[in-house]
Amino acid sequence: MIYWIGMAGSVAFTVSAVFTVIPKGSNLFSAAVFGLITAIGGGTIRDVILDVPVFWAVDLNYIWVSLGASLAVFISQNFFTSKSIYSSILYLDGIGVALFAIEATDKVWHLAFGRPLAPIILGIVTAIGGGLIRDVLAGRQTLLMDRELYAIPVLLGCTLFVVLLELLPAFRIYGAVVCCLCIFGLRAAAIHWNLTVPDRLVMKPKAG
Amino acid sequence: MIYWIGMAGSVAFTVSAVFTVIPKGSNLFSAAVFGLITAIGGGTIRDVILDVPVFWAVDLNYIWVSLGASLAVFISQNFFTSKSIYSSILYLDGIGVALFAIEATDKVWHLAFGRPLAPIILGIVTAIGGGLIRDVLAGRQTLLMDRELYAIPVLLGCTLFVVLLELLPAFRIYGAVVCCLCIFGLRAAAIHWNLTVPDRLVMKPKAG
Amino acid sequence: MIYWIGMAGSVAFTVSAVFTVIPKGSNLFSAAVFGLITAIGGGTIRDVILDVPVFWAVDLNYIWVSLGASLAVFISQNFFTSKSIYSSILYLDGIGVALFAIEATDKVWHLAFGRPLAPIILGIVTAIGGGLIRDVLAGRQTLLMDRELYAIPVLLGCTLFVVLLELLPAFRIYGAVVCCLCIFGLRAAAIHWNLTVPDRLVMKPKAG
Repeated sequence: MIYWIGMAGSVAFTVSAVFTVIPKGSNLFSAAVFGLITAIGGGTIRDVILDVPVFWAVDLNYIWVSLGASLAVFISQNFFTSKSIYSSILYLDGIGVALFAIEATDKVWHLAFGRPLAPIILGIVTAIGGGLIRDVLAGRQTLLMDRELYAIPVLLGCTLFVVLLELLPAFRIYGAVVCCLCIFGLRAAAIHWNLTVPDRLVMKPKAG
Repeated sequence: MIYWIGMAGSVAFTVSAVFTVIPKGSNLFSAAVFGLITAIGGGTIRDVILDVPVFWAVDLNYIWVSLGASLAVFISQNFFTSKSIYSSILYLDGIGVALFAIEATDKVWHLAFGRPLAPIILGIVTAIGGGLIRDVLAGRQTLLMDRELYAIPVLLGCTLFVVLLELLPAFRIYGAVVCCLCIFGLRAAAIHWNLTVPDRLVMKPKAG
Repeated sequence: MIYWIGMAGSVAFTVSAVFTVIPKGSNLFSAAVFGLITAIGGGTIRDVILDVPVFWAVDLNYIWVSLGASLAVFISQNFFTSKSIYSSILYLDGIGVALFAIEATDKVWHLAFGRPLAPIILGIVTAIGGGLIRDVLAGRQTLLMDRELYAIPVLLGCTLFVVLLELLPAFRIYGAVVCCLCIFGLRAAAIHWNLTVPDRLVMKPKAG
C-alpha cells in the first residue's frame, strides 16, 4: 500500500516536473533528469540526513517509474492541448506533495529520529526538496519566494500527523489518510481559488 | 559553553537571514525556512560528510531557537527603523560566522577527520554553507561572486586555529577564543571600512 | 593507475572551473573554491549517497592538487592568450568528465550498489554534479538548460560500461578505456563541430 503510494507520488512529481520544463524547450534527457530530481531529490536528502540506505537504491522501481513517466510525457506531448493539461498537472503535483510529505513524516517518526520536530521538517523537505532543486537548476524562482500557498499546507498536514501519531498511535493509517487529504484539499483550494499567503503573514519590505 | 556558542550562532544566523529576505516581502513561513536553512544548513552538510548524526536531530534546541528567533523578528519588525538595524545585523552575522567556523573546525579536528585540510574546509563550509544555500534559493548573488571580504577571514581564522591545535594542543580553549576574535575582527573591519578583496588577488577578465 | 586518473580529472575540472569564473573577475579565493567544488562536488554527493567515506578525506591529495592547479592558473593567467586557451580548456574539461564518469561507475558497480541503474546515475552525478553546483553558485545557466551535447555522451558511455561489466566482466580495464574514449570522443566532436541535441529529442514549447 505504502509502496504504491510512493510510486504514484513519483509519477505525479515526474510528470509535473517535465511539464514545467517543456516551455523552455528542454530535450528528452534534461526532461528526464528534471523529472528524476523532482521525484527522488527530497527523499534522497531525507535518507542521507537519516543515515539510512537511499530509498531508490533499495528499490530501483522508483527510478524506472520516473524514467517511464518522462518518456510517456515526451511521446504523448502532441496529444495534449495545453490549457486544460497545465491545470490538471498542478493538481497531480498536489497529490504527489501530500503523499510524499505524509509518507516521509511516518518514516522518520517510526525511526524515532528527532521527535517531534524532525519528522515535520523532513516531511517538508521530502515534499518540496526535489522541486526546489529542480527550480534552482532550471534557473526559475523557487516556491519559497512567491506568495502561492504551497509549503504551508504541507507544514499543517505534517504537524497534524505528528500530533495524531503522538496522541492516537493506533489510528496511524486513518490519520495518514486524513492528513494527506488535508494537504491535498488545501492545495486544491489554493489552485482553484488562487489563494495566496494571507497579508498579515507577509513581511513589510523596507528600504534597506 | 560550546553549547551556548552554538545557540548564539544559530540566533545570529537566523536573524540575519530573516532580515535579508524581508525586503523581498517573504511571508512568515518562508522567512522561518530561510532562517533555519541559514542556521543549520552548513552544519548539516558538515555532519553528512563526516557521517556523524546530524547535530540538530541530536539536540532539537537548535531548531527551536531558530524558529523562535524568526518569530521574534517577525513580531517586532515594526519597531525597527531600517537603517541602524541593517548594519548591526551585519555584525551579528559576523559573530555567527566566527562561532560556527571555529566550533566546526574544533569538532572535525577532534574526530581526526582528514587532518589538516578537512577541518579548515569543513569550518568554512559550516560557516558559509547555510548562507550560500539561502542565497541560491532566494535567487540572490552568492557571496562567492562579489568582492566583499567575507569568506577569506574565515579561511584565515580556521587555518590559524588548525596550526594552534597542531602546535599547542593544550591551549585549545584560548586558541578558539583568539581565532573567533580574529575572524570577527576582520569581518567587523570589512563591514566598517567597506574593505574588499585586494586588487592583486582579483583575476583579470578577458574576452572569452 | 586509477589513482592518477582521479588526480588528472581533478586538475582538468579545477582548471576549467577557474577559467569559467575568470571573466567575472573572481578573486583567488573564490576561484579556488569554485575549482574545488567542481573537482570534488560530484564525487562527494556520490560518496554521501553510497554512505562510504568521502574520497577526498581519505586522500587529501585530491584537494592539494586542486588548490595547486587553481594557484597555477592564477599565477600564469597573464601568459595565456584568451582565444586558443578557452577552446583547449573545453577539451580538458571533456577529459575530466570522461575519467570521473567511468571511474565512478566502476566504483559503484563494484560496491554492488543498486545495479544496474545506480552505477549509471551516480556516474553521471559524479561527472556533472560538481559543474552544476559551480554554475548555480556562480549564477550561470546550468548545462541542463541548453542544447549543448554534454551530459548525453556521459549517459551513453556509462550505460555502455555497465553493459560491458555485466556481459564481459573480465574485460573491465579495456572496457573502461573504451568507454572513456567514447565519452571524450563524443564531447570532442560536439565541441569541434558545435553539435547540439538533435531536434527530434527537443520538446515543443507551448503557451502555458
